[in-house]
Amino acid sequence: MRNDPFLPGPAIRIAGRAGGPLSGLSFAAKDLFDVAGHPTGGGNPDWAAHDPTPSRHAWAVQALLDAGAELVGKTVTDEVSLGILGENAFDGTPLNPAAPGHVPGGSSSGSASAVAQGLCDIALGTDTGGSVRVPASFCGLHGIRPTHGRLDLTGMLPQAPSSDTTGWFARDAATFARASEVLLQEAIPDAVPMRLIVATDAFGFAEPETAAALQPLLDRLKALVPDWREDLLAPGGLTAWARAQRTLQPVEAWETFRPWIETHNPRMAFSVARGLVLGAATPEGERGWAAMVRQEARGRLRHLLPPGTILAMPTTPFPAPKAGLPLPVLGPIRDAILGLCAQGGLAGHPQISIPGSLADGRPVGLSLLAARGADALLVRTALALESGSP
Amino acid sequence: MRNDPFLPGPAIRIAGRAGGPLSGLSFAAKDLFDVAGHPTGGGNPDWAAHDPTPSRHAWAVQALLDAGAELVGKTVTDEVSLGILGENAFDGTPLNPAAPGHVPGGSSSGSASAVAQGLCDIALGTDTGGSVRVPASFCGLHGIRPTHGRLDLTGMLPQAPSSDTTGWFARDAATFARASEVLLQEAIPDAVPMRLIVATDAFGFAEPETAAALQPLLDRLKALVPDWREDLLAPGGLTAWARAQRTLQPVEAWETFRPWIETHNPRMAFSVARGLVLGAATPEGERGWAAMVRQEARGRLRHLLPPGTILAMPTTPFPAPKAGLPLPVLGPIRDAILGLCAQGGLAGHPQISIPGSLADGRPVGLSLLAARGADALLVRTALALESGSP
Repeated sequence: MRNDPFLPGPAIRIAGRAGGPLSGLSFAAKDLFDVAGHPTGGGNPDWAAHDPTPSRHAWAVQALLDAGAELVGKTVTDEVSLGILGENAFDGTPLNPAAPGHVPGGSSSGSASAVAQGLCDIALGTDTGGSVRVPASFCGLHGIRPTHGRLDLTGMLPQAPSSDTTGWFARDAATFARASEVLLQEAIPDAVPMRLIVATDAFGFAEPETAAALQPLLDRLKALVPDWREDLLAPGGLTAWARAQRTLQPVEAWETFRPWIETHNPRMAFSVARGLVLGAATPEGERGWAAMVRQEARGRLRHLLPPGTILAMPTTPFPAPKAGLPLPVLGPIRDAILGLCAQGGLAGHPQISIPGSLADGRPVGLSLLAARGADALLVRTALALESGSP
Repeated sequence: MRNDPFLPGPAIRIAGRAGGPLSGLSFAAKDLFDVAGHPTGGGNPDWAAHDPTPSRHAWAVQALLDAGAELVGKTVTDEVSLGILGENAFDGTPLNPAAPGHVPGGSSSGSASAVAQGLCDIALGTDTGGSVRVPASFCGLHGIRPTHGRLDLTGMLPQAPSSDTTGWFARDAATFARASEVLLQEAIPDAVPMRLIVATDAFGFAEPETAAALQPLLDRLKALVPDWREDLLAPGGLTAWARAQRTLQPVEAWETFRPWIETHNPRMAFSVARGLVLGAATPEGERGWAAMVRQEARGRLRHLLPPGTILAMPTTPFPAPKAGLPLPVLGPIRDAILGLCAQGGLAGHPQISIPGSLADGRPVGLSLLAARGADALLVRTALALESGSP
């Protein structure tokens, strides 16, 4: 089985515009983004057959090219972005160079792998239920899930539109900030956050080794921010939020992919098909309950995160699991990951995962959330953490 | 997409024992039967990886070789025998030479196609829920689902053991009878049946054009048998029997394939995975209801079919549907086929499908059922129908 982060087939290279702010940097795009003249494969052998070859670049690809970065390839993704571990039954499992033998995380698996291996400086991913945050955590990268609705998603293969975002990875905070200024179309501010909330329920939900591994980075963060306190992220339970996201996302994904599936009966890994079948079979009452939980989660994050406040939590409850585990073992692993990722898809606040911590020798990320629209404040915080001064 | 009935890759040819009763005849085996030294693919790209290459032939393959027939290839099947139309998303749809542009029927699609094209004289298939009977009907062949439990199934990939059978196809009744004597290990008797039941509910369930197309063959059958009457096959409803079989078979199939699926997360067509997911999700109460319906069906067929009595019904409610139809259209088609096939898997009586009728220019088969163990009587009836005299 392949463990190459890039798609098989002829290499794709497109030079960036000369003299732009990202000149000299290279980037890769998850195979959910259109690159003109190349079929968008979506991680499934039957997607490209369904979709015409695009004649225009996706907005995010064009933005990076216009800023001077060079596109050096398209990367492997979990099938049509359905997967959180990065194991694609058709395209293989891209190498996690920080934890060989372990998954890279998904669905933006190849993008994270390519950046972590140093094969490019920046990579585009997508995050619906954790697909940038999880591979950033597992591979030890900076990764962002921007405010939902902020970026233009033209040319990006959708999954669950009420949760879909375009995100990106970089190894160091400085490169991450350069890419972020271009994609957020906003300068990174000078001021660091005024207040920090440490989400005690989220740290409690993580494995003790992971929570402990994040403490030094959390301590440095506390030293940067004038004021900090502890609070609950989800007073009604992280589990309720996870269940709500696991209800709403497959229902929306089924709506998105239903016309394709019903026309083409595509080949899929069993686990991917199962998720869609269960999405299709979700009773109306469950959907209604989940929509109410989403409403509550939105209210909670609006309350917790006024402008100038950030919240810290573990990105994932543990470092990368072993590759090739059987499905019954993977079920609880997926559930636990969603326990810490659900707020992203539900509430749409920006979240970045910051590397630098190791649990059992494998990377785990510290996540920071902020008010909707305060994406750049989070990038600023990542820069301050890396430099060690505000 | 391929429409070859044989598997891709190097040809398989194994000579039969010299001087046997099937000398001069060639046969093919559905890729659910072991052929020593060749991986059994099962119609799915991830099955062979799971299963070691067999070192012995399946019982049925060995029996035909011992009788002098030459094995000339292994044939395409619906994935792990889950499918009734013969459209395999990985291996293609074998040609139905009697109805080009239409499906061959499945899951023994390649076996039926190879015989119908004249590429071999006999072919082995399997029938759990209709997988020999349906392609026999659609391709215009003789096909048998023997009494459940009669043949040795060693080396045949199982699906739902309480319904699984080994069956076979031939173009003409004489060749069909020669193969049947070998595989049933019993001489074909001289006497034709004494009594015929025409199943009015089954003829009523078929499309009117199909029921009408079968009348001439049914009239010839009536002329052969001393006594005939009309009766109901399923007084409680063909629909209840279909629902029971559609409940029990996926539940058993899930039990059969669960260890493989949970370990390998195999690639499958969406529709195949969906069937297994729904099998796994079937509530206990539904299973209990279905098991009671099966009990009733068994009692009904025992009552209807004492020794010497046969029952006639359409094999399928219509001729072969078009190839490539979308899933929402296929759902009702599959349901309707099961309406006429469910008794096989539920009650396990022998059933043969006899060709010679055309509806809308495409073949449809007339099915005959008999008492458990009276398989050879059905073969005798097919011979008599072909020769026109008892």
